Amino acid sequence: MPSETPGAEPADDARHAEKMRKKQAARTTIMAGKTREKGLLIVHTGKGKGKTSAALGMVIRAIGHGMKVGVVQFVKGAMQTGEKTVFDAFPDHVEFKPMGEGFTWDTQDRARDIAAARRAWEEVKRMIADPAYHMVMADEMNIALRYEYLPLDEVLEVLAAKPEMKHVIVTGRNAPDALIEAADLVTEMTMVKHPFRAGVKAQPGIEF
Amino acid sequence: MPSETPGAEPADDARHAEKMRKKQAARTTIMAGKTREKGLLIVHTGKGKGKTSAALGMVIRAIGHGMKVGVVQFVKGAMQTGEKTVFDAFPDHVEFKPMGEGFTWDTQDRARDIAAARRAWEEVKRMIADPAYHMVMADEMNIALRYEYLPLDEVLEVLAAKPEMKHVIVTGRNAPDALIEAADLVTEMTMVKHPFRAGVKAQPGIEF
Repeated sequence: MPSETPGAEPADDARHAEKMRKKQAARTTIMAGKTREKGLLIVHTGKGKGKTSAALGMVIRAIGHGMKVGVVQFVKGAMQTGEKTVFDAFPDHVEFKPMGEGFTWDTQDRARDIAAARRAWEEVKRMIADPAYHMVMADEMNIALRYEYLPLDEVLEVLAAKPEMKHVIVTGRNAPDALIEAADLVTEMTMVKHPFRAGVKAQPGIEF
Repeated sequence: MPSETPGAEPADDARHAEKMRKKQAARTTIMAGKTREKGLLIVHTGKGKGKTSAALGMVIRAIGHGMKVGVVQFVKGAMQTGEKTVFDAFPDHVEFKPMGEGFTWDTQDRARDIAAARRAWEEVKRMIADPAYHMVMADEMNIALRYEYLPLDEVLEVLAAKPEMKHVIVTGRNAPDALIEAADLVTEMTMVKHPFRAGVKAQPGIEF
């Protein structure tokens, strides 16, 4: 914990300034070494919330920079989502493909789930190959990999061969180890506390 | 790991359907108990990426549902962000207030940082009190709390007295324990792998 308090004395201010100067110098040195730009393979996994939301936040930033983004949803296709309305406001910058038929425990049909995952993956592959897209989001694709609805080897092969500058974001819990190994940026969302435990239901703006 | 493979036999399909039926039944039971709607106090913390992005994703969903959202940035005010462009497309639904003067290690002036944090917090308080806002995002406020630029007691008091249906999202690493205690939903973003380590710089669409 920092030792300063809001009503700090001048001596504290000087100490604070000195500390911040050191932080700034360290940061400048670190950032000077970061010179490359490259397309990133990004994975959001873990049992906590925020995996899809954080990817969505990146999509929004990319749109804001005038990039074109492809978004493929593997397992939430049947849900009406708030983000769709926002995507619709940027038709030249977002192509949104809700390909899933709902969560797998709603369909109870493995062959149908495999076919849906395959169709979604083909869309992802198309967007990765098409230079028009700067970023591709494969939402909940980890679920499809977890249930072996998609062959992991094929997915890894396509991702390894992706165009140098393209960003690809894969979300979903239980990301395969080999995907984490292949990724440039991996964040695990850990659930610390969840309101469902207090009987609160899924709400617009939060869960969908 | 699941035992099924993509080329599964009919017996596997039956087993899969049975497993999914059980999952669905369990989920239905769980969801039936979730009947309350309430405004949530949400905290995104941890050293990993995605804290701000995930909050931004929730903001986008809320906008998509026609809600009005207030966004106050505590420490990134000086940065040009991609999300601003998207917010600008929904002037009736987002009020964006970049109040920070940059990261603290750039200003090296504790009194100025405290004043900036105070101005930002007053905006957050106003939005919490104003019934026009359904959701308020206090971006990187945890940083201001961490450096004691804001009195934690005052912040907790205001959050405890917030209107019942209002969602408040607080982001930033090092969330105070008392804030986590007070929150309904807490996610910790854990960094598993970061491209800065490989010399890759901050890029549009990803970091800003």
